[in-house]
Amino acid sequence: MFAEAKQAAAVVAAQGAANAARIAALALNLRATPPSMVLSCARGSSDHAATFAKYLIETRLGIAVASQAPSIASVYGMAPRAPDALCLAISQSGKSPDILAAVESSSRAGASSVALVNVEDSPLANLADHVIPLRAGPELSVAATKSYIATIAALIDLVAAWSGDRELATALAAAPGQLENAWAADWSPLVERLRDVRGLYVIGRGLGLGIAQEAALKFKETCGLHAEAFSAAEVRHGPMALVKQGFPLLVFRQSDETESGIDDLISEIVARGGEVIVAGPAPRGAIALPSISAHPVIEPMLQIQSFYRAVNALSVARGLDPDRPPYLAKVTETL
Amino acid sequence: MFAEAKQAAAVVAAQGAANAARIAALALNLRATPPSMVLSCARGSSDHAATFAKYLIETRLGIAVASQAPSIASVYGMAPRAPDALCLAISQSGKSPDILAAVESSSRAGASSVALVNVEDSPLANLADHVIPLRAGPELSVAATKSYIATIAALIDLVAAWSGDRELATALAAAPGQLENAWAADWSPLVERLRDVRGLYVIGRGLGLGIAQEAALKFKETCGLHAEAFSAAEVRHGPMALVKQGFPLLVFRQSDETESGIDDLISEIVARGGEVIVAGPAPRGAIALPSISAHPVIEPMLQIQSFYRAVNALSVARGLDPDRPPYLAKVTETL
Repeated sequence: MFAEAKQAAAVVAAQGAANAARIAALALNLRATPPSMVLSCARGSSDHAATFAKYLIETRLGIAVASQAPSIASVYGMAPRAPDALCLAISQSGKSPDILAAVESSSRAGASSVALVNVEDSPLANLADHVIPLRAGPELSVAATKSYIATIAALIDLVAAWSGDRELATALAAAPGQLENAWAADWSPLVERLRDVRGLYVIGRGLGLGIAQEAALKFKETCGLHAEAFSAAEVRHGPMALVKQGFPLLVFRQSDETESGIDDLISEIVARGGEVIVAGPAPRGAIALPSISAHPVIEPMLQIQSFYRAVNALSVARGLDPDRPPYLAKVTETL
Repeated sequence: MFAEAKQAAAVVAAQGAANAARIAALALNLRATPPSMVLSCARGSSDHAATFAKYLIETRLGIAVASQAPSIASVYGMAPRAPDALCLAISQSGKSPDILAAVESSSRAGASSVALVNVEDSPLANLADHVIPLRAGPELSVAATKSYIATIAALIDLVAAWSGDRELATALAAAPGQLENAWAADWSPLVERLRDVRGLYVIGRGLGLGIAQEAALKFKETCGLHAEAFSAAEVRHGPMALVKQGFPLLVFRQSDETESGIDDLISEIVARGGEVIVAGPAPRGAIALPSISAHPVIEPMLQIQSFYRAVNALSVARGLDPDRPPYLAKVTETL
């Protein structure tokens, strides 16, 4: 896991160069015939990347994104009408049967499809109308790391080209160097503070929510920690009942319109004695972890890179082996 | 909470009669000009009802349902295009600013709107094109109960009329008596088994997923338990790492196409020593709680009614006051 996560900067650099022509052609196509909506289709870490895609596409392109529940197709045998929709399927392995069923059914219902896959010669890649290869190279660790970052980078690449946002494209070009800095950032306070806890909440908002979901899953897989992700708004509608003296939270904070709401939440939790660790600048009483300043769309990707190194260290500090999560296999095939 | 939850059967009976003409008119309208997609817009328990609505509408009407992230409008100030979409807003109080912002923005983007509200004279009811009153009566307990069941019933009522499904309408008419039986069901094994635990997973699939989400929230609010909801497929993509000897799970199992997948999961978890409590018939080694047999769309609503009584008892058994969850207010207004 450590070795694979460390490769993320090189992966993103190579992916950008290798996919340039393909992304440009797909973006032309999408601009000529914009989809009526986007249906995302994914599981696990890939579904957390789909959450990131939802906020990115809705804020930058103004197109609604629905998360497709694979069971609608694979269990109930139904296909909601999807004329002129775009099915955005994301899968490292490209072979979970429920994802394939969902893409097939939305295609029958009128959607075209784009698959983001790491295994290029996979059933999903063969099924989709367009393929964006993640080019992360073989990922053997059960816990996805470089393939997640490669997915986020590919999504940014696609949306920058599709929306004609040169500033974002330029920002993505600078990401490999920033990812190296993020890997070198000192997140050891996270390891110290979470060594002996049993559970925590992970908070993000907007573009940070999909990153928070991914971090929560990694805490479960590699550290045996019951971590659950919430948006900074949703956590106020009930889950705050658990946040008392000493309850730990990790908050992902990117420099965009969500900042003030995130800071209000942190201050409120600190006031009641919760232990808040913040990726980014922190209000008084919270623990700040270094976050590399960048375009607000890029920052969450840099933060998850720092996190991967820290969670790997936390796993070891808790006496576990991050490369051997209990009961899990690298490729999970669900119906 | 106990007294309010107990009223659910009477609420559903009264709601059906009082809303009949209004639902019939709205259904005619929706059949004449079917929406291109549905955008659900809700927080907390209402958002869990929106999850139920997604599966109900996608399987019964073949229309895609996207969960609207309120922050896209309220924080990022964006409105994805939504020509001919239907915004389905759900709120007990009808006054959280982010929900109002989301409905306003989708309306500007071309959507019409239906609001399910308990407080009829609320900003949300005044804003929406159509209103379905929940008619649950005043709900003073912080933890929503009868308003959640009233929402589920109203959604079934609407979809039965919209899809012209007389069998489902007949099944809903029988629900009040079944809700009384569900209230009387003996779920005391749940209280005994969860008295001393710290956390658990709550599993549902398809129509049961929104019920599982609602139960997980109630465990947090009233019992201080870290409960997290997953679909029976999603839990296999990583979260299973926590499921070891003695780890508790509550599984909602309705009698539809999801049964065999749910049973496979239960058997697998029992085999590794997890403690599985099932609402419905259970494979060997799991603890079965009585579930009232009914139409598969109705069963989840009956199960959550049995659950409400049990979780109230569990709260007391754990030395807590279900009517005074820590740090929570009845109406949460988020931006």
